[in-house]
Amino acid sequence: MRIVVIGGVAAGTSAAAKARRNDENAEIVIYDRDKDISYAVFCLQKKKGGIIKDRKKLVPRDSKFFKERYNIDVFTSHSVLDIRPDVKKLIVQNDVTGERFEDKYDKLLIATGARPIMPPIQGIDKPNVFPLRSVAHADAINEFIEKNQPERAVIVGGGFIGLEMAENLVHRGIAVGLADMAQQVMTPMDEDMAIYVQKHLEQNGVKLHLGHAVQALLGSDYVTHVQLADNISIETDMVIMAIGIKPNVELAKKINIKLGPTGAIAVDSRMQTSIPDVYAAGDCAEAYSVINGKPLYRPLGSTANKMGRIAGDQMTGGDLEFRGILGTSIFKTFDLTVAQTGLSEKEAKAQGYDVVVCHNIKYDHAEYYPDSKEMIIKAVADKATHRVLGAQIVGPRGVDKRIDVFATAITFGAKAEDLFHLDLAYAPPFSTAKDPVIYTGMILEGILNRNRPLMTPHQLIQRQLGGELITIIDTREPEAYKNGHIEGAVNIPLANLRSQAKRLDKNIPVVTYCNRGVTGNAAQNVLLQMGFKEVYNLSGGYFNYMAIK
Amino acid sequence: MRIVVIGGVAAGTSAAAKARRNDENAEIVIYDRDKDISYAVFCLQKKKGGIIKDRKKLVPRDSKFFKERYNIDVFTSHSVLDIRPDVKKLIVQNDVTGERFEDKYDKLLIATGARPIMPPIQGIDKPNVFPLRSVAHADAINEFIEKNQPERAVIVGGGFIGLEMAENLVHRGIAVGLADMAQQVMTPMDEDMAIYVQKHLEQNGVKLHLGHAVQALLGSDYVTHVQLADNISIETDMVIMAIGIKPNVELAKKINIKLGPTGAIAVDSRMQTSIPDVYAAGDCAEAYSVINGKPLYRPLGSTANKMGRIAGDQMTGGDLEFRGILGTSIFKTFDLTVAQTGLSEKEAKAQGYDVVVCHNIKYDHAEYYPDSKEMIIKAVADKATHRVLGAQIVGPRGVDKRIDVFATAITFGAKAEDLFHLDLAYAPPFSTAKDPVIYTGMILEGILNRNRPLMTPHQLIQRQLGGELITIIDTREPEAYKNGHIEGAVNIPLANLRSQAKRLDKNIPVVTYCNRGVTGNAAQNVLLQMGFKEVYNLSGGYFNYMAIK
Repeated sequence: MRIVVIGGVAAGTSAAAKARRNDENAEIVIYDRDKDISYAVFCLQKKKGGIIKDRKKLVPRDSKFFKERYNIDVFTSHSVLDIRPDVKKLIVQNDVTGERFEDKYDKLLIATGARPIMPPIQGIDKPNVFPLRSVAHADAINEFIEKNQPERAVIVGGGFIGLEMAENLVHRGIAVGLADMAQQVMTPMDEDMAIYVQKHLEQNGVKLHLGHAVQALLGSDYVTHVQLADNISIETDMVIMAIGIKPNVELAKKINIKLGPTGAIAVDSRMQTSIPDVYAAGDCAEAYSVINGKPLYRPLGSTANKMGRIAGDQMTGGDLEFRGILGTSIFKTFDLTVAQTGLSEKEAKAQGYDVVVCHNIKYDHAEYYPDSKEMIIKAVADKATHRVLGAQIVGPRGVDKRIDVFATAITFGAKAEDLFHLDLAYAPPFSTAKDPVIYTGMILEGILNRNRPLMTPHQLIQRQLGGELITIIDTREPEAYKNGHIEGAVNIPLANLRSQAKRLDKNIPVVTYCNRGVTGNAAQNVLLQMGFKEVYNLSGGYFNYMAIK
Repeated sequence: MRIVVIGGVAAGTSAAAKARRNDENAEIVIYDRDKDISYAVFCLQKKKGGIIKDRKKLVPRDSKFFKERYNIDVFTSHSVLDIRPDVKKLIVQNDVTGERFEDKYDKLLIATGARPIMPPIQGIDKPNVFPLRSVAHADAINEFIEKNQPERAVIVGGGFIGLEMAENLVHRGIAVGLADMAQQVMTPMDEDMAIYVQKHLEQNGVKLHLGHAVQALLGSDYVTHVQLADNISIETDMVIMAIGIKPNVELAKKINIKLGPTGAIAVDSRMQTSIPDVYAAGDCAEAYSVINGKPLYRPLGSTANKMGRIAGDQMTGGDLEFRGILGTSIFKTFDLTVAQTGLSEKEAKAQGYDVVVCHNIKYDHAEYYPDSKEMIIKAVADKATHRVLGAQIVGPRGVDKRIDVFATAITFGAKAEDLFHLDLAYAPPFSTAKDPVIYTGMILEGILNRNRPLMTPHQLIQRQLGGELITIIDTREPEAYKNGHIEGAVNIPLANLRSQAKRLDKNIPVVTYCNRGVTGNAAQNVLLQMGFKEVYNLSGGYFNYMAIK
């Protein structure tokens, strides 16, 4: 049996290695256009000194490694030009010598990956415009910076590659502008969570230009101005294009493999394409949601590894099947960790779910233990089934743990009520007696089962703008109220609420709030039991309101 | 309705607060013998400067707080002397004035907590012998140290309180000895994991005296020697007793409430005791395992909070039910985090499970990204159902995250095969493309489904001692082999294995190993496919073997 793999990064090498583990006798060949294989695509990380210096660490495995360890033949700088599925042959070109030859396969894996989107705008081909995806790209950016010492850079695209790059460049002393046609960074997230990221970027000196599409990159030899819609022009010494990536499906299209609605190669749970004995895996292939099976294109190294392993197993007769993804993602920009799993509120609504949401601001570990920091969690649950659909978390510490707990719980179909019962590890350096995830479950459960509705800051602002009469009660101490409060709020500290609430109209909707939501919840409990008809606690409290306002 | 709560720490205050949230009109009273309530029992944490200085932070809530926020009456320094369930009355004593009075209840919660075990040995009552459990205990220890400047201390008990204390005292410049009658520290863990903790303690200057029971504390006014079995005597200036805690069940026994097999108060999923309208929660109550419902006494703040909330809900007509615990625990000693969830190997075996185990040494995040550190994970799965039964993790970083992911997965009944499919968050600062948990699942799955058995270092040593003929293959490069290898191992680097293995006897059992197990697994694959009958990969590789040896 001869297995041919096209593409030698995460999915391709995972597949080949797994195939070998299953079958010692198969012939296994990898072709890759690039001169490096198996590099960590997403590890273009930044330290103060610049993008990772020890380039060898980024390319941990070479052809020799694969031959010795797995008896796999890797041909780098080799392009597969065409496939003939009817006779199971392919045409390969040695890109160094130009020589072309025919190869054959019994099982073929397309793992051609993805590439940065470079829109066909004026100036895109100038020498100081850089895509960012591969080690080669990072090398080119590094080289340009060292040689030209740019003072300013514009990053086009507010996704995580763009935001990681922003930190990198700021740490090198470069003035960074970041442009995105969307009104927010990180479009997979909800706007009310992206705002926290945006504030942090601005605090770190990144100038944001949101809501304006890039129209042209202007300049004679080099780009000197980025021209945005609405007549905005930003001076710059270099441009990083990070608006997204698209799957490399040219080869697949050539042989009429079916693509999915996201434009990536459609595969079944065995990683099989629409053509027999042709598999696809990694960034060129379409995944689907664990939650509801809907197509999802979130090209990430962790998913590519999974898909590759499954493809390798299937090509050698195994029965490992793909179960889908949650689109879990995480990245760090400056001091902030930003993570997401499952569906955002907007995504869930777009898919037809009637949802409840909460914002939960909590310390990552016991407040009194050194270095505790607050994070904000936004969680989304399905009103009908109570199933947790997704979570977004932003904060300096402990975010990775909570997103993984959410991801695990969601994978197993957790309902909001289930989170409270998790026996998570508690000690002051690591968590709080009620972990933020547990607390989030308690809030969602209160909305779903115990008539303890939340109102988000957005909803409050909209209802106020609509002219609706709402009693807003600031339940904090007078000093806090004096230092700043929501316009129109009356100050009734919780301790006085039981007596003072009697004079309020029970038929007017009430919103209670404190700083983060805990005392607001206590006040909500009191008022509901006093017979107030409609009482909301402000989601995430005053802190969240001020962030969003 | 009148709700009386006996005990005002985690469970008692959680219950009272929840009862109030549910019922604005109930009378709610808490009696506590202590003068502080709601303090964080387990937060007796240590910094270099000593146990936490700002004592206020440890007692965040006082009587005034509970009155203002929840309209709950808290009586500190009040002991409940007796209960009369037949007439729903109790006798209370004001411990300051000595006054006694009668109170009545509709619902009663016993949340009397637990206390340190102080064995009745000679010298236990000397003034330089300290239990460690409450803020008052910590104060007493602090005061003694400041006043007497002890040079040496002996901690009796190798549980997490003892080990946290060891770090604390070492950081104050005190020479610390730690004695435990068991042959290992942290008896809930398996010996082959506790060994990692022991080595770390020794590296940090803690002198361990394991396997010797304490017989007496000798000295005239003060203890000057701790006398252990086997004629061992340790000189010391102070003694910390940390051999464990036992539930405060005297009051419960007085009224013939049923205790469970662990000696704590038996409760059902509603926290009801054997006496109607009398509930119990927190460290005085017995929990049970999420996995199989077996009684479990692991008194921890997180569990006490859960039980309290459930009791408070039930006493006010709610339907929240306890689902049990995994006994998840975590602590930090020096630079090491030590965590555990579910069943250990010995516990699982004692409960009749036929188990498979693996040891998995992995980086907490991408090796090339700064500050990555290795952790060791031991996981236990049930051979019959493939269910993951438990995990133990030791390492300097990222341990808390993985134990919580295991705890969450185990709670939902995860099988070994499920772990691979988790879509956990990956970026180089936070994890590896295959997270350690995912990798652990892959190893377990290999044992269970793909005939890729592991041999633990213990098993290898035992089989060698039994005189069995085993081919041991060191698959590492010759330099590594030269620097140290398992006695009797032959060195066949993986790259040469396919050719050189031909001359080996296929009928003799083979053990392969590398440093951590990955290359050993690759070698195992090769040999099994070459027709070797019985091939094991060494669990955790050479590193784990050397740790245990």
